[in-house]
Amino acid sequence: MQKRILSLLVDNNPGVTSRVSGLFSRRGYNIDSFSSGVTTDERYTRITIVCSGDAIILEQIFKQLEKLVDVRDIKVLKPEESVIRELVLVKVAVKPEQRQGVISTAEIFRANIVDVSADSLVIEMTGSKSKVEAFINLMLDYNVLELARTGVTGLSRGSSDVKYL
Amino acid sequence: MQKRILSLLVDNNPGVTSRVSGLFSRRGYNIDSFSSGVTTDERYTRITIVCSGDAIILEQIFKQLEKLVDVRDIKVLKPEESVIRELVLVKVAVKPEQRQGVISTAEIFRANIVDVSADSLVIEMTGSKSKVEAFINLMLDYNVLELARTGVTGLSRGSSDVKYL
Repeated sequence: MQKRILSLLVDNNPGVTSRVSGLFSRRGYNIDSFSSGVTTDERYTRITIVCSGDAIILEQIFKQLEKLVDVRDIKVLKPEESVIRELVLVKVAVKPEQRQGVISTAEIFRANIVDVSADSLVIEMTGSKSKVEAFINLMLDYNVLELARTGVTGLSRGSSDVKYL
Repeated sequence: MQKRILSLLVDNNPGVTSRVSGLFSRRGYNIDSFSSGVTTDERYTRITIVCSGDAIILEQIFKQLEKLVDVRDIKVLKPEESVIRELVLVKVAVKPEQRQGVISTAEIFRANIVDVSADSLVIEMTGSKSKVEAFINLMLDYNVLELARTGVTGLSRGSSDVKYL
């Protein structure tokens, strides 16, 4: 099953998150990640959805998304023509002898240590989905206490095909 | 109106995004940002929601969230006790004489240039909500073509009060 990344520009109305995600769930279509945030124009929100599943059902969902009055623009982001990024925060329990190993791994991934306590570190890391997953896999060698991912967001490369903010 | 950041740990089921966001929209409660991503344990997804509005209504939503079978844990992230981060991608149209100014601003914010074309730059920037907003405000001096934000995600500081991954 192929993963697809949809980038939607929608009106910033109450309920738009629910209306959009509801179209997927009503067909039992699982959303891998969902992220939404306002754009520079507060009237609009950009929603990025990563989903995988049957292409025909996705086509139906796509058509129904286009019919929603909240939805201003829909793009399928092709990985090779887009910048796609995700942010992850990982809280790792570290014994004193492990601390340097965790910090070295973080440095290799250009991750930042954003919180330090006596027995734990919080690391912030940004990158493509595969880079984020490689980093998480390495961290699993340690005792991961908590993890939070934003889900991916993305923009097409270059300056063509820009409709709105 | 106070902004609140909720961190939910939920079962990774189809429809959970829609069920959670639906509880907010049915009361006309606007969600400022919504981000979801799987944790290291694929059975669970972490959802981070930023919302603002009436405290009494939020209390009702909170109680209803607790009743959802998908919802394993709910935390209110207090900014002073949490690491809260957001990722933003900004595509800026730049004339040759503007390019250096944009790059310098990006460097001050420790942002990364992730795509360059003849007439545009894509900049990736990570930080707290206020830092992200300060950066976006500076970029508005230029011609912002597109912008995508992940919405915030966060973890509590230190290693106490960890229930699940």
